[in-house]
Amino acid sequence: MVVANIDASKLTKTLTTKPKALLDPQQLDFGKNFTDHMLCIKYTEDKGWEAPEIKPYGPLEIDPASFVLNYSVETFEGMKAYRASDGTINLFRPQKNMQRLATSSQRIMLPEFDQEQFLECIKELVKTDERFVPNDYGYSLYIRPNFIGTEPNLNLKYSREALLYVYLSPVGPYFPRTVKLYANTEEVRAWPGGVGNYKLGGNYAPALRPAMDVVKKGYDQILWLLGDDHYVTEVGTMNFLIFWITETGEKELVTAPLDGIILPGVTRDSLLELARQWGEFKVSERKVTMPEVVKAIEEGRMLEAFGAGTACVVCSVSTVLYNGKEYEIPVDPNDPNAVFGPLTKRLRDELLDIQYGKKPSPWAVPV
Amino acid sequence: MVVANIDASKLTKTLTTKPKALLDPQQLDFGKNFTDHMLCIKYTEDKGWEAPEIKPYGPLEIDPASFVLNYSVETFEGMKAYRASDGTINLFRPQKNMQRLATSSQRIMLPEFDQEQFLECIKELVKTDERFVPNDYGYSLYIRPNFIGTEPNLNLKYSREALLYVYLSPVGPYFPRTVKLYANTEEVRAWPGGVGNYKLGGNYAPALRPAMDVVKKGYDQILWLLGDDHYVTEVGTMNFLIFWITETGEKELVTAPLDGIILPGVTRDSLLELARQWGEFKVSERKVTMPEVVKAIEEGRMLEAFGAGTACVVCSVSTVLYNGKEYEIPVDPNDPNAVFGPLTKRLRDELLDIQYGKKPSPWAVPV
Repeated sequence: MVVANIDASKLTKTLTTKPKALLDPQQLDFGKNFTDHMLCIKYTEDKGWEAPEIKPYGPLEIDPASFVLNYSVETFEGMKAYRASDGTINLFRPQKNMQRLATSSQRIMLPEFDQEQFLECIKELVKTDERFVPNDYGYSLYIRPNFIGTEPNLNLKYSREALLYVYLSPVGPYFPRTVKLYANTEEVRAWPGGVGNYKLGGNYAPALRPAMDVVKKGYDQILWLLGDDHYVTEVGTMNFLIFWITETGEKELVTAPLDGIILPGVTRDSLLELARQWGEFKVSERKVTMPEVVKAIEEGRMLEAFGAGTACVVCSVSTVLYNGKEYEIPVDPNDPNAVFGPLTKRLRDELLDIQYGKKPSPWAVPV
Repeated sequence: MVVANIDASKLTKTLTTKPKALLDPQQLDFGKNFTDHMLCIKYTEDKGWEAPEIKPYGPLEIDPASFVLNYSVETFEGMKAYRASDGTINLFRPQKNMQRLATSSQRIMLPEFDQEQFLECIKELVKTDERFVPNDYGYSLYIRPNFIGTEPNLNLKYSREALLYVYLSPVGPYFPRTVKLYANTEEVRAWPGGVGNYKLGGNYAPALRPAMDVVKKGYDQILWLLGDDHYVTEVGTMNFLIFWITETGEKELVTAPLDGIILPGVTRDSLLELARQWGEFKVSERKVTMPEVVKAIEEGRMLEAFGAGTACVVCSVSTVLYNGKEYEIPVDPNDPNAVFGPLTKRLRDELLDIQYGKKPSPWAVPV
């Protein structure tokens, strides 16, 4: 049966009659302030995708018995729009997010969608609310596409109705500072045969309590481990990268491979690609265990460690607690007040330059 | 800070002006038809629990940026109301569901609630819609309490607003027949350090596709395994019980232990308790692996195997596919058309007699 796919040319707009006042950039708290409009595209198995709608941001009407509210049939993406100094608004590698959303949604039996057409609709939403894209360097407009199963049916088959919607939140830069990690040997985020490599809502709820627990203990984020050998997988909701000297004396930037356990981060991929382009040191995607990390720290071979994700870009790690013992990780040996290590800063600067249009790159996609 | 807890005495009722027609019991398809009313109880961190409301069944207004729609902060329960021949409506061990809901909700940082008061509100909802409780033996009114995080905030802390709601669906008996299982050696439902023992929505979405895949292959349900030794954990969304003769010649009813991997089912607990009261054979909660199951089948020691859950009560297994080979499991050696094995049927009858008030028991709790 041929059903309609997403068609950006059919997009309708209903503009708000109550435009919100813009907040002072300093007041922007991550994910609490939303713009005037949202994008909604409805799907039913019989008819396919309806005409996309841009309409005032507001509550969704959802059936109490829907798949999303009962069985967590929900997946999402996180992207940003950046304003260049010439006023252009850029997305960053948005096709990567479209692809990942498609992969995640297939995993939970949500319907296929035309990625290019959906991206066109997202661009139109950003243009509609472009006054909310901050001017300041480091600030951006966070874009949250959500895809949910809306059929009211408790029978565990799959949702024959769905809603793809997108809303926007202007955000300031994460306060740049180093973070202290707590290597978690109790809860496990993801495992072989599981869904840790899909951006499903269900991966996030179970992480809330462990995250609060480590904050109470004086740490910022969890370092997620897996298995008896304490394979180092992710940090908080970021990918985790290490820059060290290997036991054989080589400089190496290393991170967990895409083996089904970790989220395939767009920032992770971009940083690896940049480092590979430089060609100055080895860049590896391979399994590293916590005992190897500890050994490198103890032998003075650890140069830098950092998290990477859309929200913070990069985030240097100063400390990791493991099995009751705190280990210090160098940030910048030449600057005791540094919030980024030298490599971390260089990667960050290069990425920001692309995102904010200072350095031309096909990764920056104007809306 | 002392905030208000749930107070059933404050419950308000707004009755529907459009009562639904009752369906013929034969038309009752699981989880697609809902009654006239639902129960909603709102929570905010500042004020605590608001007055419970019974109101017409209908869509919930939920913010696009809420925890439930983004991070799957949602947990649920499944219970049933049964009509006895004297007209009494019974719940079955409802306190077990209240306790499990409390345990699940704490795991994802949802607020505490007064279990007894919430149960009183549920009883009031069932009484309000009591005309939907079928009269026929084997039929019942399915009760679905849902607990969701409603705060609009993308910051991954915890939801400071929540909604506890309950809706009802009249259901017929599962068509009693034996099921064919497919032992899954690819996807894994739950794992040590994970959340398989909590009734979170996030445990269900990832199971949809694997379940559809086995149906396409001609099987009814997945037999979920864990680890390299293929530890047998659950079947579909049911607990899995085996009645066999052990290698040392003892009759034993055995099921996976409550070790954090499986859901602590109320039916599972009740069947174990009944069998222990009989005292006729060994009853064990311990780890059994798939190779042990295969060996028992091959040596003729397997007597019966069945799933157990609120929806179906019990469900006999006739076949299991494992590593490409199909193994037959006996149902009733004296009756080739039997849909339940002798022990399975005896357990089922005893449980139904309690649920439908034929046999007095403290497990039956009138509304």
